[in-house]
Amino acid sequence: MSLDGTYDDGNIFAKILRGEAPAAKVFEDDHVLAFMDVFPQAKGHTLVIPKHSSARNLLEEEPQTLAHLFQGVQRVARAVRAALRPDGLTITQFNGAVSGQTVFHLHVHIIPRWDGVPLGRHGEGGMADAGELKTLAAEIAAKIS
Amino acid sequence: MSLDGTYDDGNIFAKILRGEAPAAKVFEDDHVLAFMDVFPQAKGHTLVIPKHSSARNLLEEEPQTLAHLFQGVQRVARAVRAALRPDGLTITQFNGAVSGQTVFHLHVHIIPRWDGVPLGRHGEGGMADAGELKTLAAEIAAKIS
Repeated sequence: MSLDGTYDDGNIFAKILRGEAPAAKVFEDDHVLAFMDVFPQAKGHTLVIPKHSSARNLLEEEPQTLAHLFQGVQRVARAVRAALRPDGLTITQFNGAVSGQTVFHLHVHIIPRWDGVPLGRHGEGGMADAGELKTLAAEIAAKIS
Repeated sequence: MSLDGTYDDGNIFAKILRGEAPAAKVFEDDHVLAFMDVFPQAKGHTLVIPKHSSARNLLEEEPQTLAHLFQGVQRVARAVRAALRPDGLTITQFNGAVSGQTVFHLHVHIIPRWDGVPLGRHGEGGMADAGELKTLAAEIAAKIS
């Protein structure tokens, strides 16, 4: 495995961006799209991705796009906090399969944390219920400012 | 525990920024400082912090400072890759003690990953040798572009 490779626009996030796959959307502006992770590591686990990008990871992204991405992450993270009142938030961004990356379109994880609740491993809780994700997405979306 | 609180300028990163505490420095520009983590979770574990900030975490930072911070993270991450040739890179940013945050000045972790090597837990390897960190810092610094 390595960080080498080329962008494959058949990845699931590219499909979501093209409207070819569903997602529980939280927020969208000119630069980023935020939606619920379907394999949440905690309640409220949200992803933020650049909309206009063919970067597989952070190393490959245009610096200006990266700036917009993390400003979007902040905006969404603040809304996650306001909606769900976690005790903390873990932000992660994986580069390469060895790091845990499974979708090769740059993305950032926002994972709410609560005292006494260890971070779940990716996939261990199985796929989330689509209706529940939609409800959470609406709760977070209502707190975007 | 919670995300509430106020910035305490007695934290170790503020001391490093003021030159009151040592660090194995990798990179510095007008906006960010990068240096080796003294409790590395992997060889080459590097931190990037905003220089002009009193944000404890990502939620509190000025959006423009956040943009500069992650552009710095990218620049340093590319140099870590070039210097150490890892198979991947894990980027993490902790908000709140429950998330694993121990220093309350906004910071981003760049952690090189190699196939077959699980991510170390913070502190489990003990404090790194200062000379080794200085050597690694110089290797990474030589690849900044």
